[in-house]
Amino acid sequence: MSGLTLAQASEIVDAALSHARELGLRPLTITVLDPGGHPQVVKREDGAGILRPQIAHAKAWGCLGTGSGGAAGARHATRDPAFFAALAAISEGRVASSRGGVLVRDQDGELLGSVGVSGERPENDETVAVFGVEKAGLVADVG
Amino acid sequence: MSGLTLAQASEIVDAALSHARELGLRPLTITVLDPGGHPQVVKREDGAGILRPQIAHAKAWGCLGTGSGGAAGARHATRDPAFFAALAAISEGRVASSRGGVLVRDQDGELLGSVGVSGERPENDETVAVFGVEKAGLVADVG
Amino acid sequence: MSGLTLAQASEIVDAALSHARELGLRPLTITVLDPGGHPQVVKREDGAGILRPQIAHAKAWGCLGTGSGGAAGARHATRDPAFFAALAAISEGRVASSRGGVLVRDQDGELLGSVGVSGERPENDETVAVFGVEKAGLVADVG
Amino acid sequence: MSGLTLAQASEIVDAALSHARELGLRPLTITVLDPGGHPQVVKREDGAGILRPQIAHAKAWGCLGTGSGGAAGARHATRDPAFFAALAAISEGRVASSRGGVLVRDQDGELLGSVGVSGERPENDETVAVFGVEKAGLVADVG
Repeated sequence: MSGLTLAQASEIVDAALSHARELGLRPLTITVLDPGGHPQVVKREDGAGILRPQIAHAKAWGCLGTGSGGAAGARHATRDPAFFAALAAISEGRVASSRGGVLVRDQDGELLGSVGVSGERPENDETVAVFGVEKAGLVADVG
Repeated sequence: MSGLTLAQASEIVDAALSHARELGLRPLTITVLDPGGHPQVVKREDGAGILRPQIAHAKAWGCLGTGSGGAAGARHATRDPAFFAALAAISEGRVASSRGGVLVRDQDGELLGSVGVSGERPENDETVAVFGVEKAGLVADVG
Repeated sequence: MSGLTLAQASEIVDAALSHARELGLRPLTITVLDPGGHPQVVKREDGAGILRPQIAHAKAWGCLGTGSGGAAGARHATRDPAFFAALAAISEGRVASSRGGVLVRDQDGELLGSVGVSGERPENDETVAVFGVEKAGLVADVG
Repeated sequence: MSGLTLAQASEIVDAALSHARELGLRPLTITVLDPGGHPQVVKREDGAGILRPQIAHAKAWGCLGTGSGGAAGARHATRDPAFFAALAAISEGRVASSRGGVLVRDQDGELLGSVGVSGERPENDETVAVFGVEKAGLVADVG
């Protein structure tokens, strides 16, 4: 499994947080996971709630869990809430099907990992995640 | 870590329970957490149910987890139930998004901890929590 | 199940902590449980570690779990460590077999609840627990 | 809550990992927690094992849980293994009493958070943690 280097994951996180400050968003937490769902980088901004690392993790992990970006997960959850309630239990709390989670791919579409952002409205979380991934020259698959 | 002293946390709890007796409410449980979500004071009144300490804890912890008071959490949960069902699992049962949880702030808005009350109707739980916080000269952020 | 009133449990905790301050002990956490193992009062002093509430809880709960005071539990654990390692798992982490946990009885020997203290050397935790129980006119069964 | 800023926590992590590369150590994972035990920064180097984030977390969390650095925890665990086996269960796996966990304090001794490092021999993990904290102008309390 190749995946992202620590240097690439760090670049995604720092670019995303820098963009969030330009946009004046509320304090964010951002997580980058490898293709196996294990953390490479986590950063929580000053003033962010104490559960935000777990929520960002669950957004990123949920994308890997189902193989789809968080926007697809959110649409599916709206159509079939009972299944997504079951997913929460099946995954032992590792899945949040919500915008702000994106898959990271290279230009050939190969999966390199995922990113999760939490702390703002879901669409703003997603904007920041996509920005960071693209800044690192990679492709953000929102689903 | 600044936060509340044990003396302040005790004052909040004792004032809140004293007010509950004046109002003739059902037996309550009240918890004060530090900003990291760890208990400083817990009191369960005679006759309160045996799960009330965990419910009061989850109301207080949920406020810290997301950075918003319980009234905001309750409104969000009504709008996006699937996400809040997932939150219960993500947090391993540490979050109840319900009135009766309030953030405690000083006059400058700095976060000092949170309070959770359980045992009555949510709006009465909240009334008692706010009373205790204000009696201690602090600000209750209900969200 | 009769057990302690909240007023009695509060008196035990406040007397114990007041004694700890006279003795100049490190910051303590103290918990009083009813006979069913559910919290009535918890207080954590300023500067105490964030796991201390759970340790104090486990000392008090372990006494109720086995029906013996913590000093007896500690002796048994020394003689049969494998069994007490299993107890940790069997109880899902609710048992610490250590001095600082005491059963609370009335003058006739009837069980009213238990007390757990954590933060100092086990013998000092126990001294403070016993002091609080006796100050409330009750009997501390250390095992 | 005062504690470390994200900028300070990032400086600790980057200095520590930079030092690890100078020393030619095996791939490391390093975590900085706030005083309540919640992550501010996590970085896992390329090639590190997938459980390393949780181990680094548990080293850092254990220091906050008991209020002592990991070197003190390791000594206590050697003297009283039954209690530390129980601690693993009581804390639901959040405590590793091992060198490589250090408390972070300011020059006045106030607690600002903790650092956990995992991936090398415990004494090397500790060396790197201390280096990072001191590089940020703060005090590493190894216990």
